[in-house]
Amino acid sequence: MKVVITGGAGFLGTALAQALLESRTLRGSDGRPQQISQLTLVDIAPPRLASDPLVRTLVGSITDAKMVEQALEPDTDAIFHLAAVVSGQAEADFDLGMRANFDATRLLLERARHSGRNPRFVLASSVAVFGGALPAVVEDDTAATPQSSYGTQKVLCELLMSDYSRKGFVDGRALRMPTICIRPGAPNKAASSFASGIIREPLVGQTAVCPVSRDTLMWVMSPKCAIRNLLHGQSLDPQVLGKVRVINMPGLSISVGEMVEALERFAGASTSSLIRWEPDPAVVRIVNSWPGRFDTPRASKLGFKADANFADIIRAYVDEAGVHATSLPTV
Amino acid sequence: MKVVITGGAGFLGTALAQALLESRTLRGSDGRPQQISQLTLVDIAPPRLASDPLVRTLVGSITDAKMVEQALEPDTDAIFHLAAVVSGQAEADFDLGMRANFDATRLLLERARHSGRNPRFVLASSVAVFGGALPAVVEDDTAATPQSSYGTQKVLCELLMSDYSRKGFVDGRALRMPTICIRPGAPNKAASSFASGIIREPLVGQTAVCPVSRDTLMWVMSPKCAIRNLLHGQSLDPQVLGKVRVINMPGLSISVGEMVEALERFAGASTSSLIRWEPDPAVVRIVNSWPGRFDTPRASKLGFKADANFADIIRAYVDEAGVHATSLPTV
Repeated sequence: MKVVITGGAGFLGTALAQALLESRTLRGSDGRPQQISQLTLVDIAPPRLASDPLVRTLVGSITDAKMVEQALEPDTDAIFHLAAVVSGQAEADFDLGMRANFDATRLLLERARHSGRNPRFVLASSVAVFGGALPAVVEDDTAATPQSSYGTQKVLCELLMSDYSRKGFVDGRALRMPTICIRPGAPNKAASSFASGIIREPLVGQTAVCPVSRDTLMWVMSPKCAIRNLLHGQSLDPQVLGKVRVINMPGLSISVGEMVEALERFAGASTSSLIRWEPDPAVVRIVNSWPGRFDTPRASKLGFKADANFADIIRAYVDEAGVHATSLPTV
Repeated sequence: MKVVITGGAGFLGTALAQALLESRTLRGSDGRPQQISQLTLVDIAPPRLASDPLVRTLVGSITDAKMVEQALEPDTDAIFHLAAVVSGQAEADFDLGMRANFDATRLLLERARHSGRNPRFVLASSVAVFGGALPAVVEDDTAATPQSSYGTQKVLCELLMSDYSRKGFVDGRALRMPTICIRPGAPNKAASSFASGIIREPLVGQTAVCPVSRDTLMWVMSPKCAIRNLLHGQSLDPQVLGKVRVINMPGLSISVGEMVEALERFAGASTSSLIRWEPDPAVVRIVNSWPGRFDTPRASKLGFKADANFADIIRAYVDEAGVHATSLPTV
């Protein structure tokens, strides 16, 4: 079974590839685990897992039809489409966002369609598809009225993938991911980048800027939980999914203030005091357009999972990232 | 003020052009009526109103960027985008539907954007954006989950137009039109074509095939009411519309059986008996995926109108089309 991950050099793509290389199997269209014969990682940056013999790496942009053709060989059975231009960047450069987030997805869907194999196509979508005048709690059937170009582009992809699935061109499933935190590494241009930064940086004694207010409500998911849900999304039988191929993911509803309180309980006030509160109107506008609370009965019924609490997310991050902060309590 | 109608040779496009040529004015961005200096009708078929000095006709496809460039001169202030490949055809030929319904709209939006004038862009959308597991009554905030490629392509256009509006590229408004009936002329490839045919053909003594069952509930609007609403949609101030640029149109909820009963009351049983009931699964599937009942408080508040009853729609059609059916009652 040939598997492709776009954005395979990214944080989530790398973690997903690691998980696949550990299990060496993935659910086939017959519902049974199959051996992975090839794992293609395509990204504009060089993927980091090139040493495994299963791994094929391709460095280039999926906005290029030739790269898409190379990436999706005709016998590809599963595609995890994670590559995207992030929210802040798609807002600043509309044309880049359309090209990288929408046109590239269309190229991938077209290529998958013409393989004639109806491959499973997992699209990483986002809570950014919601916006505007939202109910206090977003339901499974709440209309997507995005208030950002990133969110718009994600809904366009969801709708196109849904029609491709209805026509039998691909076997698609779009997972609307919460804000993933705590991400390791450096800040990026996502409007939600701070949600990782305000925990990650103070834990190693560095200051971090929080561009939104304490009462900003976020819908979050840990990286580990995200990988589990992406794999689970791929494994689901198309009959179980039915006509609606877009699924709001479960998550944790937490305010930025509560995130910082959890950090303080974990690592002390000297750590949480490293956060500088400097509102950034551009970030505030985008982040405030996203919902902070969902009810996700469909995802629960389908077997998707949420994190139990934010303290566990911090603990897991520290364990996995090998953080040795000076102020960490001796647990 | 320069005005463009795509699909300007079509039935609605011609009627809209006629209305504009009568009034000679249209609401400008300052909210005041302005003289129309040029009315461009672009269509793949030759427009029928070429004799008026205000009219400029262009014959060609808006899937062609050069034609779009010609059609939308940089000083265009209002665009009525009515051109589309209809539902039955978009379902039969996916690629044609994507090209004509989505890519062409994107070309128009891009051209309008780069004029730098933020022109008013009226998109004729459709109730076909709805489908799947719908509530008994579709509300203003019901999510669009189309079950046809035509419906999918219309939602893609709505979302793109909304983001273009949010970014200040165009001043867009998408009107989700009910099934327009009674259309004059010949049947077309729209899945809803029968809704006109089962009235129009019997009125002139011809048989008509009804491919759906009597209890099929439709959401309908007369051509006259549709033109009024398209013009009203163009006239609305952007501040009144706010962030949500997509509006469910009001309409008349009526079953196909009730439509035929109205025909029988109007023209007698010898007329309504000219309908042959021959279910067509392909048409049934598409038409049954559309909702037949809406609640449209937002449209009402914004001043959009619905027809009073179906008898009036028949009477208006007979008056305007100059039908002289043998069996018509002497009113």
